[in-house]
Amino acid sequence: MNRFFLILSIIGVPLSIFGSFLQWPDILMFAIYCLTIIGLASFMGRATESIAIVTGPSIGGLLNATFGNAVELIISFFALKEGLFSVVMASITGSVIGNLLLVGGLSIMVGGMRYKRQNFNVHDARHNTGIMMFAIIVAFIFPYIFSLNMAEHRVQLLSTVIAIVLILIYLFSLLFRLVTHRGIYKTSDDDVGHTDEKAEWGSLKAIIILAVVTLIVAYISEHLVDTIKPVGESFGWTETFIGVIIVAIVGNAAEHASAILMAYKNRMNVAIEIAIGSTLQISMFVAPVLVLMSWAFASFMPLVFPLKELTAMALATLLTMSTTTDGDTNWFEGAMLLAAYVIMGFGFYLL
Amino acid sequence: MNRFFLILSIIGVPLSIFGSFLQWPDILMFAIYCLTIIGLASFMGRATESIAIVTGPSIGGLLNATFGNAVELIISFFALKEGLFSVVMASITGSVIGNLLLVGGLSIMVGGMRYKRQNFNVHDARHNTGIMMFAIIVAFIFPYIFSLNMAEHRVQLLSTVIAIVLILIYLFSLLFRLVTHRGIYKTSDDDVGHTDEKAEWGSLKAIIILAVVTLIVAYISEHLVDTIKPVGESFGWTETFIGVIIVAIVGNAAEHASAILMAYKNRMNVAIEIAIGSTLQISMFVAPVLVLMSWAFASFMPLVFPLKELTAMALATLLTMSTTTDGDTNWFEGAMLLAAYVIMGFGFYLL
Amino acid sequence: MNRFFLILSIIGVPLSIFGSFLQWPDILMFAIYCLTIIGLASFMGRATESIAIVTGPSIGGLLNATFGNAVELIISFFALKEGLFSVVMASITGSVIGNLLLVGGLSIMVGGMRYKRQNFNVHDARHNTGIMMFAIIVAFIFPYIFSLNMAEHRVQLLSTVIAIVLILIYLFSLLFRLVTHRGIYKTSDDDVGHTDEKAEWGSLKAIIILAVVTLIVAYISEHLVDTIKPVGESFGWTETFIGVIIVAIVGNAAEHASAILMAYKNRMNVAIEIAIGSTLQISMFVAPVLVLMSWAFASFMPLVFPLKELTAMALATLLTMSTTTDGDTNWFEGAMLLAAYVIMGFGFYLL
Repeated sequence: MNRFFLILSIIGVPLSIFGSFLQWPDILMFAIYCLTIIGLASFMGRATESIAIVTGPSIGGLLNATFGNAVELIISFFALKEGLFSVVMASITGSVIGNLLLVGGLSIMVGGMRYKRQNFNVHDARHNTGIMMFAIIVAFIFPYIFSLNMAEHRVQLLSTVIAIVLILIYLFSLLFRLVTHRGIYKTSDDDVGHTDEKAEWGSLKAIIILAVVTLIVAYISEHLVDTIKPVGESFGWTETFIGVIIVAIVGNAAEHASAILMAYKNRMNVAIEIAIGSTLQISMFVAPVLVLMSWAFASFMPLVFPLKELTAMALATLLTMSTTTDGDTNWFEGAMLLAAYVIMGFGFYLL
Repeated sequence: MNRFFLILSIIGVPLSIFGSFLQWPDILMFAIYCLTIIGLASFMGRATESIAIVTGPSIGGLLNATFGNAVELIISFFALKEGLFSVVMASITGSVIGNLLLVGGLSIMVGGMRYKRQNFNVHDARHNTGIMMFAIIVAFIFPYIFSLNMAEHRVQLLSTVIAIVLILIYLFSLLFRLVTHRGIYKTSDDDVGHTDEKAEWGSLKAIIILAVVTLIVAYISEHLVDTIKPVGESFGWTETFIGVIIVAIVGNAAEHASAILMAYKNRMNVAIEIAIGSTLQISMFVAPVLVLMSWAFASFMPLVFPLKELTAMALATLLTMSTTTDGDTNWFEGAMLLAAYVIMGFGFYLL
Repeated sequence: MNRFFLILSIIGVPLSIFGSFLQWPDILMFAIYCLTIIGLASFMGRATESIAIVTGPSIGGLLNATFGNAVELIISFFALKEGLFSVVMASITGSVIGNLLLVGGLSIMVGGMRYKRQNFNVHDARHNTGIMMFAIIVAFIFPYIFSLNMAEHRVQLLSTVIAIVLILIYLFSLLFRLVTHRGIYKTSDDDVGHTDEKAEWGSLKAIIILAVVTLIVAYISEHLVDTIKPVGESFGWTETFIGVIIVAIVGNAAEHASAILMAYKNRMNVAIEIAIGSTLQISMFVAPVLVLMSWAFASFMPLVFPLKELTAMALATLLTMSTTTDGDTNWFEGAMLLAAYVIMGFGFYLL
């Protein structure tokens, strides 16, 4: 498995660089870029896992989310610069439903195939879904409704204030978790049996690999953005579909790889943490930062999602909340989340 | 009580048959059909209870739901054949809110009058409300929003895919419950004190009664459909109101009888299982099967409910979730569910 | 602190009376009225606390809510009489989001600064949020959706029936709590360490102070209403903003004072009870009584909130539910509720 990803990366990286210089056909390059990122993502997963073993599930999950979402932030930055707001919004939407339903669903199902019941820290999960309720249900739905019939410059003001509040609350949540309440909610059976697990790489080596691979992924992602439009035209896909489904799946390949790996190893705390933590980072950090960044560009991007994307995010949030509220997962719950992803993916395909 | 239902059935069945042949006035026949079905429903309830004692609460509840909803599937089938989509949609809506708020509310209140607190298996209830979240909140709201401004043939495609996914997840939920996770979530105090309860009828006798009565109910239901329009015109009721309230109450009389009986006997697990299980069968099996069936008829029925019916179902689902989440009921919670039913019933009456 | 409020009241009450007779400028009087009410509110808080110590947290919380909301009922009564429906609706909205997000958020944050984790009776909290789900999510959203395209006299009928049902369920909730299930859900650690707390004033003295201060507050509130319009014009604030934010903050000053005090003393049961209990009284008693009262006036006020106010109330309800469902609070959760209040306040300011 690891060998497969290694080969994918070793072949993919030079092909990506040569291909982009030689201007190979867009569809070919799109496929190469995607596969290469997926290959590289496994290294990010393994590096993060190595660090996670040393740092414990919370910070490990946080690291996962950060390095997974750096890619998305960079892709979105270039799309924003070119004024492709619909692609930016779509990729945020896609990351939210992709992390909750696809990454979450696959992890829970894969884990559930092996173990009858898998448990995770209910306190952490409820804490996180509570923040998700704030970020997605309150902070995304509110400006949608309030911007109806509102003058444009007021929508900008509202978006800006909400973006600042979101970032602030995100920083508070880190402060809460890493400083004021570190370990407060730890249950006695957290990570039982994992204490003697050995990290694959040393901390330093893992950090260097993580940094270098992230840079390469960013470089490839930048070129990936340019192929979105021509590929969409070739296949008859809308930009929304490519943003919500394709970009999000590729962009979250890192989370995929490591969350499923963790679920397979019955470290459900980390798997759930990656899926929900990554969603929180996208909605409370990546999205508002992009809104604030857009002040620097030609036109302002308000924090107002199209109704259909907002609906998809809200439904994914509610379904995840009701699924994780009991601190216990099984294959059926994973299948249900995946089914919701299939329905939504098909809905966006038909738009 | 049983004698009363016996008399209702013994008088009602021949009257229903003679009346329909002799073409008695519609309003009279409507009343006769309804009362006869209610009478017969008590036999279905008793037969199901006899089987439930042998098979345990889960399968017993499932049987209840199946035989209660067979009637609805048949009524809807005839309405669908005649192109009365609004009646079909309304009767699905009515079954959902009827089962959750009326059957659920009455059971909880009747039980709560006798016992201060009634408990049920929280794991089962949360599992079921989680599925309900998927079926009603995700799979019904999603196509409503996504079908806005969408070409008709794409709405058909989306409806068809969602219908197939719903049926699949429904089958998975049976597989989960009856095969892979049978008894996994059983708590030690499930059905304490019920082990020595004696079934009224033997299994074979009960199954035969159930089958025969179901057939008679189906026959009467078919004729009932034809009287809906003239009765509505006489009383000034819309088809929606008749579908949502009258048809649903009559069609769910079986669930009513047995759920309330179970609640009265403090077997709250079965009562809740009937109310929620029946809702799941309607939304994940009856509704999508009708959508797929409609391919065979003149025009396709999309899985897109009118906004008001969708709202009623979503609100009923959320209220039921918040009421059952603690695994404990009392008369006040029952009264609250019934109050929601009264509000919604009046709302549909005024449409 | 108490001395400060005493001075505020001693100076404020005569100034309010003289000022209103001498017709001082509206902006000045608006400020004087607000400050005086806030000063007086502290006496209501202390009197209620004295009674609460004797009567226990449930009835104490109920008393708090009652005396806090009497003011709002009176303010709204005068606004209703003058046909200012939008101010009435806005002040109900403001009380709901103010109590849940501002009072609740401040209490939880202030308490959380002092104690790492604060616990409260989960059963009570879930019971109350369940009723909130009924009152705000079901009984407020339902008439909004059903009144779309509905003839005016039918909207009146629907509003009236829902108002009666709400009041009935509110009375049932009191019956449940104070009669049939009094003390049923009491946990063993309720109010541990508070049994030896001494009331500041005797019961009789506290009741007299409560009654007299309530009367004075009502007198000042009446004059406050008349200054809303001119003040709004001076500052460029809409009536909605003044109703939702200013009136609600001043009108809930009593709840503020006592809820925060209770949270500071780690009596989280009472603090949560005040915030949620007050919301329930507003939505299930004050709002429907005002709807019914409006039959006596020139035009009927339907129970149909503007979409934006309805959204704010629904989001505040969902956020509070997800925050209080685990029976445990901390500073971060308080900060999150406050952040939601800031977002909403700014949204209403921009309308």
